[in-house]
Amino acid sequence: MTSSAAPPVSAWQPIAGGITAPRGFLAAAITAGLKPSGNPDLSLLLAPEGAVCAGTFTTSLVRAASVDLCAGRLRAGGGHARAVLTNSGQANACTGERGLADSLTATAELAQRLGLAAEEVLICSTGVIGVPIPMDALNAGLDPLVAALSDTGGDAAARAILTTDLIDKQIALEAELGGRPVRIGGMAKGSGMIHPDMATMLGYLSCDAGVPADVWQAMVGRAVARSFNAITVDGDTSTNDTFLAFAAGEPLPPEHWQALEAGLTAVSQHLARAIARDGEGATCLIEVRVEGTTDSAGAIAIARSVCGSSLVKCAVHGRDPNWGRIVAAAGRAGVPFDPGAVALWLGEHQLMAAGQPLTFDRPAASGYLRACAAGRYLGGPGPEGDTVLIRLRLGDGPGAGTAWGCDLSDQYVRINADYTT
Amino acid sequence: MTSSAAPPVSAWQPIAGGITAPRGFLAAAITAGLKPSGNPDLSLLLAPEGAVCAGTFTTSLVRAASVDLCAGRLRAGGGHARAVLTNSGQANACTGERGLADSLTATAELAQRLGLAAEEVLICSTGVIGVPIPMDALNAGLDPLVAALSDTGGDAAARAILTTDLIDKQIALEAELGGRPVRIGGMAKGSGMIHPDMATMLGYLSCDAGVPADVWQAMVGRAVARSFNAITVDGDTSTNDTFLAFAAGEPLPPEHWQALEAGLTAVSQHLARAIARDGEGATCLIEVRVEGTTDSAGAIAIARSVCGSSLVKCAVHGRDPNWGRIVAAAGRAGVPFDPGAVALWLGEHQLMAAGQPLTFDRPAASGYLRACAAGRYLGGPGPEGDTVLIRLRLGDGPGAGTAWGCDLSDQYVRINADYTT
Repeated sequence: MTSSAAPPVSAWQPIAGGITAPRGFLAAAITAGLKPSGNPDLSLLLAPEGAVCAGTFTTSLVRAASVDLCAGRLRAGGGHARAVLTNSGQANACTGERGLADSLTATAELAQRLGLAAEEVLICSTGVIGVPIPMDALNAGLDPLVAALSDTGGDAAARAILTTDLIDKQIALEAELGGRPVRIGGMAKGSGMIHPDMATMLGYLSCDAGVPADVWQAMVGRAVARSFNAITVDGDTSTNDTFLAFAAGEPLPPEHWQALEAGLTAVSQHLARAIARDGEGATCLIEVRVEGTTDSAGAIAIARSVCGSSLVKCAVHGRDPNWGRIVAAAGRAGVPFDPGAVALWLGEHQLMAAGQPLTFDRPAASGYLRACAAGRYLGGPGPEGDTVLIRLRLGDGPGAGTAWGCDLSDQYVRINADYTT
Repeated sequence: MTSSAAPPVSAWQPIAGGITAPRGFLAAAITAGLKPSGNPDLSLLLAPEGAVCAGTFTTSLVRAASVDLCAGRLRAGGGHARAVLTNSGQANACTGERGLADSLTATAELAQRLGLAAEEVLICSTGVIGVPIPMDALNAGLDPLVAALSDTGGDAAARAILTTDLIDKQIALEAELGGRPVRIGGMAKGSGMIHPDMATMLGYLSCDAGVPADVWQAMVGRAVARSFNAITVDGDTSTNDTFLAFAAGEPLPPEHWQALEAGLTAVSQHLARAIARDGEGATCLIEVRVEGTTDSAGAIAIARSVCGSSLVKCAVHGRDPNWGRIVAAAGRAGVPFDPGAVALWLGEHQLMAAGQPLTFDRPAASGYLRACAAGRYLGGPGPEGDTVLIRLRLGDGPGAGTAWGCDLSDQYVRINADYTT
């Protein structure tokens, strides 16, 4: 989506290694015994000396102790941090004074082992709300965790941060910027903020180019607006949502910042799409592209409204080319446009022009939806093989924006209703 | 909820007759052949001479021709109207110039038969989006419709406005105000704005007390805020949502306006709850009461956020006393409160105090949810037997507010996914 303003995103090529692909970043994961399942549940990401860190956090008033700690330390430290610990199994939200004390203890203990100041260490928690972290198990895990740090630890870390996700979510890209290779890695967890008491979305990004803290924070803010803030699964914001992006390395000249941001955005969008795709009960990813609005913020708001509509999600799940639900969801986004100018496409099928329905090949449009569902995880360039593409042109304005979601299945309800706390 | 500021709502007693219970109001319904089902599909409400009419309409930008016509005529006429025609089967939304022309024709033809000016006649449409009204059938139905007008026509009209609703929704109340009986009647349709292409909520109210148009509009606005605007089923706003409230009769002295508004609010809340209760696939009504906020608008916003949470709705459907989902939904409403002060009750069971979970009898709390679902439509005073009551105290502020919703079942998804346009 940034390709018009920035050097082509195609300059960024996928590479292996995930969050530890960028030089100087180390990661580790162990089983500390926090999850009843016995799966790996404690992980660590260590950034090189001098790293800047930009964070974005849940906007919910009810938020975990770890969120308060991260936001406070990044603010106080001027956007610098070196390490982040992730405990998976307990969200440490609604745990009061004890929750904050546990977060402080965990980061202080870890900092000591890493030779860092406690203020340079962050913590993210994910899991059941209202349950404290088993601190004995966590503390006992810190020595083996630090011992396991490795520049190939990305895969293990990407798995250890998961809770009820079906698949791990990671990526790394590389490009030549100013004659030297720059790498960006990322990992995330979350099945679209839809899990019962495990509703957290966590995302982490690493980059081996040096960028001033304020520039990095602004870049990350824009990338998040076009990725993690442009996905919706069921509208439920978690108490723990956190995205942390580290950058450390040889300073990158300002003329390459735009190209770097393109890579940053591509990594963020890949991770965001992966979360939407892994939404509970989902059979396909839905990509909604809106164009022709007054500005891009309005376009994204409309795209999110369509992605968030239960009726649109059910229609896609039923393989029903239901243009009425799509245009109704666009109309309630609170963004002005001329209803008489609406044009709407579902894949290659145009369903509306000038605000009114067209005669279209209904079986073929329905077949398109079936094909997307059947193509799950096949991947491919552009919208992947499992991606339902909905395109709305709402006028002649310069605004354009994209949002992602997933279909709503009866499986979603069964999972969330049958789960017992 | 109005009982603290107004004379007791208990002064208002249920009576028979629905929308035609108030003196001077006539209604009629016929089968004009607009619905494929062959059920009654054309109805008419006629208010006495001099009636004032207050309207509230969908805030969606994509709205039906009938909505534009109603809003325009009420604005131009200074809040006066005499009749409203309702065609059920076609929403007349996304139908362009033709849609508006059809609305104008239908009201003009009807006005002529009623001896009224076209500007005094309104129209509401509900049904499939994008399909024009079969005007030949509608026009042929107008003579028999007018001939059927009756002061006992409320029942028939309440049934004819339905689309896929499972039950009709109507009520009438009577109270003595200033030594004379005042009656308020109402009817509504809508299964919670959740039907595929039949997403409309329509509500109508009649009152046989005379009130100045501006006073009536203000009263109706406040009542709608505490009823129809306080329900949510799946967040999807319709293209056709309309509420029209007529008042006509001997002028009511200002000292009784507050009591009248209490009755108006009670009728509106009854109809709103009936819509939420009839939500597709729902097994129970959910009532969320929020208190202790800075103001009541904030309390209603938080209550709506909880009612609208898919996770809360799934938890109630699963009979799971999941306090974490409730408090997380409250936290993301955008209304400030102290998370450390939260107290939460589910029925009689207190689940949280001072922002942290309490030890509670989980099987008993789950049993309460099961009992509510089993009590569907049993009715009763206060929260009815089918009503799950969630109560949140968020501080010491004077703000309080209530919202209603329903649980989310896999049946909802099946209905909305399997439906084919």
